[in-house]
Amino acid sequence: MNILIVGLGLMGGSYAMGLTQKGHKVYACDINTESIEYAKYNKLIVDGSTDASTYIPNMDMIIIGLYPNHIVDFLKKNSKLFKKGQIITDLCGIKTYFLEEAQRYCGEAEYISHHPMAGREKSGVVHSNIEMFKKANFLITPTEKNTDYAIEMMKALGLDLEFGRISVVTPEHHDAIIAYTSQLTHAIAVSLVNADTDVDSKNFVGDSYRDLTRIAKINEELWSELFFDNKEALLKKIGDFERELDEIKAALANGDKELLKKKFISSTNHRKEME
Amino acid sequence: MNILIVGLGLMGGSYAMGLTQKGHKVYACDINTESIEYAKYNKLIVDGSTDASTYIPNMDMIIIGLYPNHIVDFLKKNSKLFKKGQIITDLCGIKTYFLEEAQRYCGEAEYISHHPMAGREKSGVVHSNIEMFKKANFLITPTEKNTDYAIEMMKALGLDLEFGRISVVTPEHHDAIIAYTSQLTHAIAVSLVNADTDVDSKNFVGDSYRDLTRIAKINEELWSELFFDNKEALLKKIGDFERELDEIKAALANGDKELLKKKFISSTNHRKEME
Repeated sequence: MNILIVGLGLMGGSYAMGLTQKGHKVYACDINTESIEYAKYNKLIVDGSTDASTYIPNMDMIIIGLYPNHIVDFLKKNSKLFKKGQIITDLCGIKTYFLEEAQRYCGEAEYISHHPMAGREKSGVVHSNIEMFKKANFLITPTEKNTDYAIEMMKALGLDLEFGRISVVTPEHHDAIIAYTSQLTHAIAVSLVNADTDVDSKNFVGDSYRDLTRIAKINEELWSELFFDNKEALLKKIGDFERELDEIKAALANGDKELLKKKFISSTNHRKEME
Repeated sequence: MNILIVGLGLMGGSYAMGLTQKGHKVYACDINTESIEYAKYNKLIVDGSTDASTYIPNMDMIIIGLYPNHIVDFLKKNSKLFKKGQIITDLCGIKTYFLEEAQRYCGEAEYISHHPMAGREKSGVVHSNIEMFKKANFLITPTEKNTDYAIEMMKALGLDLEFGRISVVTPEHHDAIIAYTSQLTHAIAVSLVNADTDVDSKNFVGDSYRDLTRIAKINEELWSELFFDNKEALLKKIGDFERELDEIKAALANGDKELLKKKFISSTNHRKEME
């Protein structure tokens, strides 16, 4: 296939790497010419440009690796260039916020969304790697407008990139899950680090604190967008979490050791099921 | 030195392994004879018994690896056997709760406390290993009753076990830090897992959720003791954390993107300082 990657960051670059290795002809566009040059020089792509319009007509698939708010802008700008038979998709971590609009501006092409649940604390095409996909989840989030063909194309994409597990969920279910497993975890890590009032504590941490706060190093532009674009679901999950923490606080304050033990046994069993 | 380990679990066994490798003569007592047999067979100790009293008189150092509530019981039972020049210490994760009493019941010996900030999700002597000490913090928590000699003996113990960093702090400071870096992190992980209301979410997790919830598998007996024995400090830290999380919630609810970004930038900078 001819594949165009729009936005050549860490994820776009890693997609380019994996898809080129599988024999696809991969092109890329990015506002940063250095990223393009790097990807060409390292044979991640056949060619690239700051302008997507010359490539679009010849592509079988277009993969958009832009921030949520820029996806629809890109589609609006190029909607007349998209052709029947083309598949357009994105890598975005939230779905309901923009998906209806994206499907409205994809012209003759078919727009179907997916979410690769992999990432690194590092950003930029120079850190591209496909190892991070190996054990990761690949979620396809079709709407009722999508065809079986498009869903199969997405499954093929997940297989080409060698994701650990490929699943199909509705965009609404996706966003509710992500609010819990991804955005809430980041909100917690950020709050834990910011609650530190002791200059010494960084010298006295164990593995648990280190693991819990690794994701407190966070790209503020991307994540403030993700938080706001999934605001309702996230607010609900923060509330669910705080109620649980308040129960631990109450058990402590009331000297209710049995309730505390019950909470620990419950979390232990639940966490074991995940493994 | 002749060293007695009281309580041959994961930590006691790992201490025995490390100290035997450094040439000390290590003995152990435990209510579980199988643990003693395992340790003898694997040459972690010279000998062991369910009864500590025959060993105590000949020891230079006694290291208590029991749950917090059992430390003082052990001391009371044996206080008349402890001799001048002996050092008694413990591995316990909280200090102010029992330390004054421990120093009252150590007889002629000197009681000084320390905390090895290392651990594994697995328990029992069969999982003993000294690798976990290599990058970990070793905190010595003397009171004004302790001599310089005892502090030096503790430093030598940390060096023998090859801990990554050895520090001296007051018991009060230790407990405040631990409430934040250890007990609060466990309360958060437990609450996050218990807040899960979606049967599917375990199939859709990324690395961040996995890292954050690893410690939600928790020994309910030990940790409910640790929580209650450091109750005031922990309640304060849960409050500090909830205030931070509430600020994120408010920023979201009020559409204050700039405040959210400020929180992310602050946590990013703070977390980087730790590395």
